[in-house]
Amino acid sequence: MTVKETQKQWKKEKLIKRLEKRKQREAAEKAKNEEVQNKAGRSYTVSIALPGSVLDNAQSPELRTYLAGQIARACVVFCVDEIIVFDEQGEDVRSVEGEFSGVGKKGHACIQLARILQYMECPQYLRKWFFPVHKDLQYAGLLNPLDSPHHMRIDEESDYREGRVLDKPPKPGKGSVVGCGMRKDVRIDKQLQPGLRVTVKLDKTWNQGVVVAPHVPRTEGGLYWGYTVRLASCLSSVFTESPYKEGYDLTVGTSERGTSVDQATLSPFKHLLVVFGGLRGLEASVDSDPNLDATDPSLLFDLYLNTCPGQGSRTIRTEEAILISMATLRPKITATFPDVRHTKGF
Amino acid sequence: MTVKETQKQWKKEKLIKRLEKRKQREAAEKAKNEEVQNKAGRSYTVSIALPGSVLDNAQSPELRTYLAGQIARACVVFCVDEIIVFDEQGEDVRSVEGEFSGVGKKGHACIQLARILQYMECPQYLRKWFFPVHKDLQYAGLLNPLDSPHHMRIDEESDYREGRVLDKPPKPGKGSVVGCGMRKDVRIDKQLQPGLRVTVKLDKTWNQGVVVAPHVPRTEGGLYWGYTVRLASCLSSVFTESPYKEGYDLTVGTSERGTSVDQATLSPFKHLLVVFGGLRGLEASVDSDPNLDATDPSLLFDLYLNTCPGQGSRTIRTEEAILISMATLRPKITATFPDVRHTKGF
Ligand SMILES: C[S@@+](CC[C@H](N)C(=O)[O-])C[C@H]1O[C@@H](n2cnc3c(N)ncnc32)[C@H](O)[C@@H]1O
Ligand SMILES: C[S@@+](CC[C@H](N)C(=O)[O-])C[C@H]1O[C@@H](n2cnc3c(N)ncnc32)[C@H](O)[C@@H]1O
Repeated sequence: MTVKETQKQWKKEKLIKRLEKRKQREAAEKAKNEEVQNKAGRSYTVSIALPGSVLDNAQSPELRTYLAGQIARACVVFCVDEIIVFDEQGEDVRSVEGEFSGVGKKGHACIQLARILQYMECPQYLRKWFFPVHKDLQYAGLLNPLDSPHHMRIDEESDYREGRVLDKPPKPGKGSVVGCGMRKDVRIDKQLQPGLRVTVKLDKTWNQGVVVAPHVPRTEGGLYWGYTVRLASCLSSVFTESPYKEGYDLTVGTSERGTSVDQATLSPFKHLLVVFGGLRGLEASVDSDPNLDATDPSLLFDLYLNTCPGQGSRTIRTEEAILISMATLRPKITATFPDVRHTKGF
Repeated sequence: MTVKETQKQWKKEKLIKRLEKRKQREAAEKAKNEEVQNKAGRSYTVSIALPGSVLDNAQSPELRTYLAGQIARACVVFCVDEIIVFDEQGEDVRSVEGEFSGVGKKGHACIQLARILQYMECPQYLRKWFFPVHKDLQYAGLLNPLDSPHHMRIDEESDYREGRVLDKPPKPGKGSVVGCGMRKDVRIDKQLQPGLRVTVKLDKTWNQGVVVAPHVPRTEGGLYWGYTVRLASCLSSVFTESPYKEGYDLTVGTSERGTSVDQATLSPFKHLLVVFGGLRGLEASVDSDPNLDATDPSLLFDLYLNTCPGQGSRTIRTEEAILISMATLRPKITATFPDVRHTKGF
């Protein structure tokens, strides 16, 4: 493209953005109202995205694993609901649900990161079922536990539990039996395929429960309930393949070249997305994306923020930037929803 | 002590605190005025303290080293001027300046952490002189570099440089020669003992310079210039052995049981101290301190803050808490000194 064409393209993108903005403003108003009504829990979500290539920054397989663990912990500390691992090296990994299979050499950083993130998110008592021995998990023993609310201990009291449908012969008129990491199994309200992972809302007796959507502990119970993991084949797929049908209505890019976070305010949102770059920043992610013409990543986001003005190190590593950025954004997020009961802390 | 006695003791401590407060308020006013006058740089300092025992939380010697590196990087990103490693296990390590020698088995976590922190702070070109081979540094190759402003590359332009006085025969009427990691050595204004580490302010030619105090790049040049490391034999020594003759005039303790940071404001200060606990929190550090009677750590600090309200993990690790807390305090610190030119970022 010539410079002229590029500028034209950018203008077009800006126009589209402006129109989108208006739509978003309207949606934001709606979101705010809904959020206020839904006093029981939190209906908004927070997603973060980062390139799988960050793992290639580690100096040994052990440290690679540890780095993945740092990312998982950072996300859990800040109650992140979705982690998107995107490919910035054009390795064409596709979105994969649940377990990943057929790991080749290509795209391995993305898949390994996603696998370790999923492994850590899974309550310990379910891991042996959902995570068979795999070389990506060889150093899993080095991972610091997430200690999130859905990682229940055996006798812990809770209205909700993650479980696995057991392979017990169904009794006519009765639901399946689910193992929830308690001393006794739980009879649920419906018959489901053995081996499925389910979220169960327990009744008072703890012997029975109903299967609920995984968001229910958050939206109705006010509990943080872990994150989902999604693979994206490039940066643009992070936006376009959102699991939320309305997409992300507030997007934040992070960079030392962004504007200072100190002056930024967040508009009310339903689905916030915060995107991090790898070793060479988001510029590199934009460059390698076949669907993006622009070269300036700031055009892709509602806000493009420097979350650590005056940094004393030439570069902040991605795993550090997640903790720093989320710590800086946290009070801004809660200020955006002053009337909402946020996820219950410990 | 009986409960009554303890309460009496606490009341006394509270009274003392109140008197100290007034003194501090007066000092703070003075600090603010001085800070505003000193437009060239930053005259306030930020110190952090943590127990060396955090290293014992790591699962291998490699990860122990990596953890120390995480702490160093967190401090540099937030322009911390002093790191105090305190002993919460009553191992009686004493304050040691410069290199530590005679490392026994006892107190090893504190000394090892301090040594790695010092090693990382030292510009690469000086390390071979100040850090002989040592088993504490065996895995130093795994450490991520600090990339701070005083870690100059060979041809980098700068008004200041760290250097080492060379062992060249002095010429009458001339100063010593200092190796500053540049292609040419630098002649300084005075004769100093060979082997000393010095901060040099270079003249235009870069062949000559004057020796300045290590704080000058910060206070006059507006540059972040690394941190000093201090060992303290217990938590109370962190306060009483301050290198600043006025001591710390604003002290912050950190804990999930603190009050929410979101409502906190910092009063102007000259020397801020932020203290972190280890695996068992600051309670354990207070308990093991022979000089402290109180058991409630909040009494020791001007502010006792939860810097991550609503955390999604049951515990935040100390190395994570440093990044999170400093990211949360950073805008509050800069807001405290609105007219000051803060350390220049990159
Ligand atoms: C190693 S850094 C990228 C550095 C790269 N040289 C650049 O210029 O962007 C990795 C990521 O950390 C995040 N990051 C680093 N410093 C940041 C800052 N000051 N503010 C916000 N995000 C930052 C960004 O997401 C960045 O892409
Ligand atoms: C592993 S935590 C200590 C946990 C310990 N069980 C306790 O109850 O304090 C280690 C240190 O991280 C810091 N920290 C952890 N969570 C924090 C929070 N929410 N706010 C401020 N500091 C926190 C504190 O300095 C704490 O001593």
